[in-house]
Amino acid sequence: MALLIDVKHPDWMRDEDLRNELLRHYPEADIRIGDHPGNPDEIEMLTVSTYLPGEALRYPNLKLIQKTGAGVNNILGDLNLPQSIQVTRLRTDTSGGEMAEYALAYVLQEQRHMREYRDLQSRSKWKAFPPRRAADTTVAILGLGRIGQLVAQRFVDNQFKVVGWSRNLRHLPGVDCYDGADGLLRLLQQSDYAVSVLPSTTQTLGMFNYGLFKNFNARTIFINVGRGDLVNEPDLIQALDDGLLAGAILDVMSVEPLPADNPLWLHAKIQLTPHISGYHLGDAIVDIAENFRRLQSGDSLLHLVDRAQGY
Amino acid sequence: MALLIDVKHPDWMRDEDLRNELLRHYPEADIRIGDHPGNPDEIEMLTVSTYLPGEALRYPNLKLIQKTGAGVNNILGDLNLPQSIQVTRLRTDTSGGEMAEYALAYVLQEQRHMREYRDLQSRSKWKAFPPRRAADTTVAILGLGRIGQLVAQRFVDNQFKVVGWSRNLRHLPGVDCYDGADGLLRLLQQSDYAVSVLPSTTQTLGMFNYGLFKNFNARTIFINVGRGDLVNEPDLIQALDDGLLAGAILDVMSVEPLPADNPLWLHAKIQLTPHISGYHLGDAIVDIAENFRRLQSGDSLLHLVDRAQGY
Repeated sequence: MALLIDVKHPDWMRDEDLRNELLRHYPEADIRIGDHPGNPDEIEMLTVSTYLPGEALRYPNLKLIQKTGAGVNNILGDLNLPQSIQVTRLRTDTSGGEMAEYALAYVLQEQRHMREYRDLQSRSKWKAFPPRRAADTTVAILGLGRIGQLVAQRFVDNQFKVVGWSRNLRHLPGVDCYDGADGLLRLLQQSDYAVSVLPSTTQTLGMFNYGLFKNFNARTIFINVGRGDLVNEPDLIQALDDGLLAGAILDVMSVEPLPADNPLWLHAKIQLTPHISGYHLGDAIVDIAENFRRLQSGDSLLHLVDRAQGY
Repeated sequence: MALLIDVKHPDWMRDEDLRNELLRHYPEADIRIGDHPGNPDEIEMLTVSTYLPGEALRYPNLKLIQKTGAGVNNILGDLNLPQSIQVTRLRTDTSGGEMAEYALAYVLQEQRHMREYRDLQSRSKWKAFPPRRAADTTVAILGLGRIGQLVAQRFVDNQFKVVGWSRNLRHLPGVDCYDGADGLLRLLQQSDYAVSVLPSTTQTLGMFNYGLFKNFNARTIFINVGRGDLVNEPDLIQALDDGLLAGAILDVMSVEPLPADNPLWLHAKIQLTPHISGYHLGDAIVDIAENFRRLQSGDSLLHLVDRAQGY
């Protein structure tokens, strides 16, 4: 029984490096890497960041696909994925904390007019703008799972007014919570910033379309650190051009890396980063080795995905 | 008995606006503004942001100078200031919190490579850098008075390693504290960021000179949200050019507004903002009206400055 690591994201993490890390926790394991999988019949667990359609079928005895992160929609969306294959994801406390930090960093950049000051400095020009006070600023968090809770708490800790939305109503300290379609509209109308950490499911795919942007208010800045395919990108551009919202900060896009000729790159109201908001796995990496051990012993797996629910 | 408001900083706060605010708290007060002081003999309290040398001598019966902020070095440095005149400053919870937020915002900008991503976006280029982890980053706070404590706590709340330095040793939760000349050097050597909120006193004036920058480490970014005259600016430029430290983020300078031909403006390793890190007075404004009332009733004043100590 072997674990195959095929991350397919060498700029982020090389298969060899992850293999070495896992061997520290499980030295006797048979762990292989994407370039040298050996006999495919021996692969019972596959660890990926990017999952390719049909990939599971290469390994006739595959029992488990372990994602090196939280989002499993590409795996579950594979129509050829046998029902018998289980899917697990990772704890996201480290990367979720980094996503919260990213959202805070970009919100503070806007609150403190940092881009304007950089331009003024290049012209040797002294001109002050009042910083916008956190206590007078409402940040909406869309999606209140583990990552959303970390993001919400980070803004609470930094003295912002925080509102949150989730499919099923949550109760979080310091956060005014909403649910349902009506709740989403009421939340968007009061938001200065709207941060999406929603998962990609059949219900959320493409949900940020022109119709929803009509319910934003004109001052809102939309921040997407969740999943790129939730956003209808041509609609986002049209909505920005029409002044339905003030700006967008996108760490995720529907196609990554974003092609150089994509109009998102040079839009004046869009700031882009290359999917780096949550970067480090931290201690969560140990759970990959632990899941390989449990798969062999038959124990229940860590962070098992409900394939019907989608996360 | 009259209170004269002469802020001399109209872009920040107009005298009339402050007068109206104070009258809300003390409607029957005789409050005048810089353009219309009336009979100078009647002025017993003067409220300023910028204090001009000799200004106190214009008002023969002046008893109290109230600063609209924390820094009183220009007032105390006036050799013509009669010993009988008391000096008070303001509580700085609101502006101190804003200074903490400013320091955090600029630190996060560096941690998250935000300037690099902005440049990459302008070239439609997808390239990721690992964000630097807060837990692996040491922020040094120089000056642990009320503002310094707010700054230190903000970085603790955002998961940074925090060290602090003050003239007399302090004990703060979550902060590794140092004092004395040796302590300063030990602190600087381990700092990724060094944030100064030190007051301007005879002991701190010009302390950030080439000799001290030699004790920085090459990766340190120096952030000054305190007082501009603590920095020997030609020495700072030389130290940056010599690679003694990695960069400087300056919200305060020795001359403000900074003249357009000053070399600080266009130095590649310097980021400048126009003294806006702490901007709002918040509730502290009430204490100006209260001090005018106490001056008249003979009660002890709020936030009285020890003129010998300098703050």
